[in-house]
Amino acid sequence: MTIEMHPIGYVRTDHKGEMPRHFSVSQVKGTLEIDKKYEKGLEDLKVGQDIAVIFYFHKSKEFSLENIRQVPRTKNYKKGVFSICSPRRPNPVGMSVVTILDIKENLVFVQSIDMFDGTPILDIKPFWGLNKK
Amino acid sequence: MTIEMHPIGYVRTDHKGEMPRHFSVSQVKGTLEIDKKYEKGLEDLKVGQDIAVIFYFHKSKEFSLENIRQVPRTKNYKKGVFSICSPRRPNPVGMSVVTILDIKENLVFVQSIDMFDGTPILDIKPFWGLNKK
Repeated sequence: MTIEMHPIGYVRTDHKGEMPRHFSVSQVKGTLEIDKKYEKGLEDLKVGQDIAVIFYFHKSKEFSLENIRQVPRTKNYKKGVFSICSPRRPNPVGMSVVTILDIKENLVFVQSIDMFDGTPILDIKPFWGLNKK
Repeated sequence: MTIEMHPIGYVRTDHKGEMPRHFSVSQVKGTLEIDKKYEKGLEDLKVGQDIAVIFYFHKSKEFSLENIRQVPRTKNYKKGVFSICSPRRPNPVGMSVVTILDIKENLVFVQSIDMFDGTPILDIKPFWGLNKK
């Protein structure tokens, strides 16, 4: 089974230097520039809200089974790929929870990003409910 | 740009009746049956840990721009597709946070699922760090 996806927009940021390794430790600001044709889909998102951004690791090297265990950036030993956040994974899909600072037309200004400038965005979802578990 | 993905496994559940509408209100149990070739990628996942499961909404009807605003199950008015969890979205990709009950070889037994039996799984990620934000 092959599943095809297409970007709904791109991450924009002018952050210089190394990108924080995870959204939970990032204060980097940036913009989710969504395709104008999807602008009405952003209605009802609110300033201050957390959203999950699903994206494509467009700079990731191709995955092979040699990468099924990898040494994460913060460790000195290998771990299974599904227990770490490495961009080199069977499907190079990422997920970050970011906070909305502002919304103007098709632009969503956010904080806590850990994606590179130019990252293709696949989806935006409201992120809620984890505290209810 | 077209991005191609392939399932790493499938959700299995024998839950009968309506599926809970969101993982945060679900106590449904099931199994993530991961392709044997990726079994070593599950190493280091722990019982009790929350994981984010990225999956493909394989039963979703095709999205068109008429669906850019939809009436969610719990409301009687339309909302933008990116502020709701509808499976009918530009890229039919879902994300649920579930809790690991047990792991045996290529099988991950979990609680809190809201996906149908047979749902193709695209990725598993450790879910941590939101409390640090």
